[in-house]
Amino acid sequence: MKALQALSDSRITRIIQDGESEVLSDVLAIEDPLEIRLGFPDGKHRAVSITMRTPGDDAELAAGFLFTEGIIKTPEQIKQIRHCGLKIGMQKGTLDRAAALNSNTILVDLADASAVDLKKLERHFYTTSSCGVCGKSSIEALRTEAKPIVANGLRVSADLIHSLPETLREAQRVFEETGGLHASALFTTEGELDVVREDVGRHNALDKVIGRKFLDGEVPLGERILLVSGRASFELVQKALVAGIPVLAAVGAPSSLAVELAREYGMTLVGFVRDGRYNIYCGGERILANG
Amino acid sequence: MKALQALSDSRITRIIQDGESEVLSDVLAIEDPLEIRLGFPDGKHRAVSITMRTPGDDAELAAGFLFTEGIIKTPEQIKQIRHCGLKIGMQKGTLDRAAALNSNTILVDLADASAVDLKKLERHFYTTSSCGVCGKSSIEALRTEAKPIVANGLRVSADLIHSLPETLREAQRVFEETGGLHASALFTTEGELDVVREDVGRHNALDKVIGRKFLDGEVPLGERILLVSGRASFELVQKALVAGIPVLAAVGAPSSLAVELAREYGMTLVGFVRDGRYNIYCGGERILANG
Repeated sequence: MKALQALSDSRITRIIQDGESEVLSDVLAIEDPLEIRLGFPDGKHRAVSITMRTPGDDAELAAGFLFTEGIIKTPEQIKQIRHCGLKIGMQKGTLDRAAALNSNTILVDLADASAVDLKKLERHFYTTSSCGVCGKSSIEALRTEAKPIVANGLRVSADLIHSLPETLREAQRVFEETGGLHASALFTTEGELDVVREDVGRHNALDKVIGRKFLDGEVPLGERILLVSGRASFELVQKALVAGIPVLAAVGAPSSLAVELAREYGMTLVGFVRDGRYNIYCGGERILANG
Repeated sequence: MKALQALSDSRITRIIQDGESEVLSDVLAIEDPLEIRLGFPDGKHRAVSITMRTPGDDAELAAGFLFTEGIIKTPEQIKQIRHCGLKIGMQKGTLDRAAALNSNTILVDLADASAVDLKKLERHFYTTSSCGVCGKSSIEALRTEAKPIVANGLRVSADLIHSLPETLREAQRVFEETGGLHASALFTTEGELDVVREDVGRHNALDKVIGRKFLDGEVPLGERILLVSGRASFELVQKALVAGIPVLAAVGAPSSLAVELAREYGMTLVGFVRDGRYNIYCGGERILANG
């Protein structure tokens, strides 16, 4: 059911080099805008962000976004999350996916607006940085929410990391048809899949995963390993740090700033997890040698 | 020289399944924030956007962003583009790349602010869409700048499309080391490479390409084919439409909304250009059969 809503049928012509062309049916990953709005107790609304996402799990996406961007801190700050005019539940399995598909606006009603960091909101309106403090000031503003990973003694076997992409692929088999979706997944330290979410936007896939755990009251996620299907950017590392995730593994390459931030905040960052090998960029003390 | 500035050295530990681990040196794609500011004739500044980009070609990136987002229309509206306190030229080859690396803020000084679409600016502050017009309103607001492709009789041979990724790879060989950079490239209808730019952000790579042509006074780009190294999203199609590019080819998958927008505006959209085959999603009349 989930798969059907994330996919769209399309007629295509396939051109084959030195061969016949053929007309066939193809499936596409759905991309559609979602506006995230905050609803204040006095009845006022405020748009926070518009994101291009794959429909489904919109409440998780909105909650995850607001949390990882530092706008809200606890699930208790949220009274309810609903699409425009349609109320949907926040608890596991109660999202009305059919209704969700009919709306491109999601409203997060706040229980108490005094706890909301309006300065963080302003950052999303791109008004805080000033040219007079150019250079490092932008970076500093961007990373304010990241907190150092708590050293809780978590260790992961080197072999276990190799197994994660295969487990993820099995869980997302339907989506692979399109070749157009990013995935984020949380694993236990035994390599068991906990939560997986997909989206045309990699930040959205991660916000959906973290949003689910945030709404369930399970952050910080000090006992989890995060796997992302693509590259590891600064923004993904930052979001994972806000959620307290100690190990981030990426199937693709990390960027320079992703490594810098992970190192500074004590996160283990691993990249290019594929074909029976991977690279440890920092935090190698959490990876236990084989045997 | 360009490559050196886009790359960063890192020490890593490579873990090999059922094998020895090794410590070696690795290169990373550089990711760093850039704040784009507009400078008005009265001396006031206004921050428009912060983007995470690979340093280099920042003036092109800023110009391309302002153009493809509908904030400015012609290169004459720009008086000069400079990093904070450092003036750099706008013409081909005159960018001071060393200076560019020292600043994370770029200022676009306007010759005449009356021509600037301030409403478009507001869209970037995410304040225009309203919950009362939910659903299609967001999409409509997002696509306002796209214009239908002018039917100029441009045709491309089906074989030529197959050759584009290889030409691109040869041009970006140095960057492939990192596995972490997106590329955008313009080709002539004879398959000759015109402009290629790379970035950790795919939107930035495209803005850099379009920005170069915009500053050179060469848009609309009715005689060019655009190749992007990854997926084709709504946003990439929209930016290409603003620049008047009739054919967009992607090595990866397109999204549903990318195909929808391309079809509506008469663009030819081709995806999965690899391994001797590709799919035509719309606008197939511009692709001439082999032989």
